[in-house]
Amino acid sequence: MPGEFDLIRKHFARPVRRARLGVGDDCALIAVADGLELAVSTDMLAEGTHFLAGTDAGRLGHKTLAVNLSDLAAMGARPRYATLALALPQANDDWLTAFARGFFALAHAHDVELIGGDTTRGPRNLCVTVFGEIPAGRAIRRAGAQAGDDIWVSGTLGDAALGLAHLRATGAPGVAGTASAGSVDRAAAAPALDRVQAEYAVARLEAPTPRVQLGLALHGLASAMLDLSDGLAGDLCHLAKASQLDAMVQAAALPLAPLLAPVFAGLSPEQRLGLIAGGGDDYELCFTAAQAQAEAIQLAGRACGVPVTKIGTMTTPRGAPGAVLIVDAAGNPCTPTVLGYDHFGNRP
Amino acid sequence: MPGEFDLIRKHFARPVRRARLGVGDDCALIAVADGLELAVSTDMLAEGTHFLAGTDAGRLGHKTLAVNLSDLAAMGARPRYATLALALPQANDDWLTAFARGFFALAHAHDVELIGGDTTRGPRNLCVTVFGEIPAGRAIRRAGAQAGDDIWVSGTLGDAALGLAHLRATGAPGVAGTASAGSVDRAAAAPALDRVQAEYAVARLEAPTPRVQLGLALHGLASAMLDLSDGLAGDLCHLAKASQLDAMVQAAALPLAPLLAPVFAGLSPEQRLGLIAGGGDDYELCFTAAQAQAEAIQLAGRACGVPVTKIGTMTTPRGAPGAVLIVDAAGNPCTPTVLGYDHFGNRP
Repeated sequence: MPGEFDLIRKHFARPVRRARLGVGDDCALIAVADGLELAVSTDMLAEGTHFLAGTDAGRLGHKTLAVNLSDLAAMGARPRYATLALALPQANDDWLTAFARGFFALAHAHDVELIGGDTTRGPRNLCVTVFGEIPAGRAIRRAGAQAGDDIWVSGTLGDAALGLAHLRATGAPGVAGTASAGSVDRAAAAPALDRVQAEYAVARLEAPTPRVQLGLALHGLASAMLDLSDGLAGDLCHLAKASQLDAMVQAAALPLAPLLAPVFAGLSPEQRLGLIAGGGDDYELCFTAAQAQAEAIQLAGRACGVPVTKIGTMTTPRGAPGAVLIVDAAGNPCTPTVLGYDHFGNRP
Repeated sequence: MPGEFDLIRKHFARPVRRARLGVGDDCALIAVADGLELAVSTDMLAEGTHFLAGTDAGRLGHKTLAVNLSDLAAMGARPRYATLALALPQANDDWLTAFARGFFALAHAHDVELIGGDTTRGPRNLCVTVFGEIPAGRAIRRAGAQAGDDIWVSGTLGDAALGLAHLRATGAPGVAGTASAGSVDRAAAAPALDRVQAEYAVARLEAPTPRVQLGLALHGLASAMLDLSDGLAGDLCHLAKASQLDAMVQAAALPLAPLLAPVFAGLSPEQRLGLIAGGGDDYELCFTAAQAQAEAIQLAGRACGVPVTKIGTMTTPRGAPGAVLIVDAAGNPCTPTVLGYDHFGNRP
């Protein structure tokens, strides 16, 4: 078995061009040009909570970076660097090879340099810190929405939650051992998917696409933004609270993948909304914008090849700010079965 | 049980002054002044590998940050920011309170702002990324030592390894469950320590002091530097390799804590050297410097309140660079029982 240092060097020590110093010393060194700020985000993925034990290593490498790039996208930052710390139960060259392939394929696609990291023995755990650049003062924050602003989301919602429900229902490897742990519980529904639907939904769960280009394109258009990792209802609540507003969302407007629409149609309204607005792992952008920007936002989405959909309106708060009201076509409140995802909270 | 977001806010969302934006949005935002570079390092601590299950939460909070600050010190960088991701088996308010107290006490001592993080359920795992500032081009790297340079270390060596050996010998909580995992194996010796010696050695293991001020003071003096986390012999090998040299170390020159010297004296030469040069968790600085700098280095150490000791000389390589030769007073090679610590390697 090769030693730790050999493994790290082999899989993760790649030359850097932009960074002043990459992997291999006590620290990496980077410079930030005058007039730019550095956006920094950290996400940790623990086996059983964020991914199933049997998850394909290549997809896991992709997702580990993707969920972090999604945070940069949510501020409108341009990805530049990442560090990666990983704990593994044993050093497995095949696993590391596949993981690194998935990680670096996405890193290269977004011109991200891996500048540092750590490798250790322990229960499988992946922790990435990403660094993006953004013109000073121009980050798109959660605070900033105005009453009357439209609420938008990119892509489609609920795909990943449906993928997870499918994996649970079909007893995918890793599900049994983690059935009581966190997100594996997320979806109680067990709808029947055909093979193509299942592959699509599971791919959306295991290999989400960070909306980096769209995040950049929304500068000057979006008034507030975040990414959807824990479910629309819960995440939108954070944006509303930060903006000191409430949010009203039209259930019928929530965008569904055409391929999965028939599956959602076969569920009860509560189950359906539970997956679409209360499931997690969407990694789509949710943002607000003045109504006058609607056409420009549609154009930005088209330019980035990502559909964008108007789903509701920011409203003046009726009590403590942060309430998210989801309504049906008649204006009656709808209640999803799961409202947001809280790693340590009691699950409904 | 409070939800994840409440827990995070309560324990880790502190106001920031230097950062443009701290905890609470998708990313933190920082600016780096013109002429400065950002030094970045990540360390992950997994239970059973880097710390025992029974470790005091306050000390663990301290150590989690300390080992990262030690990496900044090793480049001569000034600590500025940190992110913290933690996986915990359950949300325990008392544990988090104590952990945060230890973490922030050290953070405040070094004027470090916590700017972001993540909290999740899973086997206990702590991952910190630290950010330090350094004038452009002035980082003290591992490469840079010249043949003939003196080799120096700060503080004393082997204290932490002795502390771990003591914990193992006395059956401290957490040892039993992790006896086969990583660093818990590190020291085979089980020397007898009195209460004061044991408290000191265990404190050095559980609450190491990052040599930040000394690292800064060594600008213009040290030709190469790193911090000792995996044992002098193995770590010095990295410095030697990066500098394309060999290293010769005088065993008798290795600095011991006066309090523990009698304990080391009672061991066999191999056991003693195993703990002093082959144990880990010293978190002292090891650096090289031209012989003409010796007096200035002693002064720098005194100014920082940290003893510095000359332990050897960098030499032209006799074969592939990176050989570390430890010799006794007569010039005969000494072999420690454990040479460096490799998380994934086979242990000798």
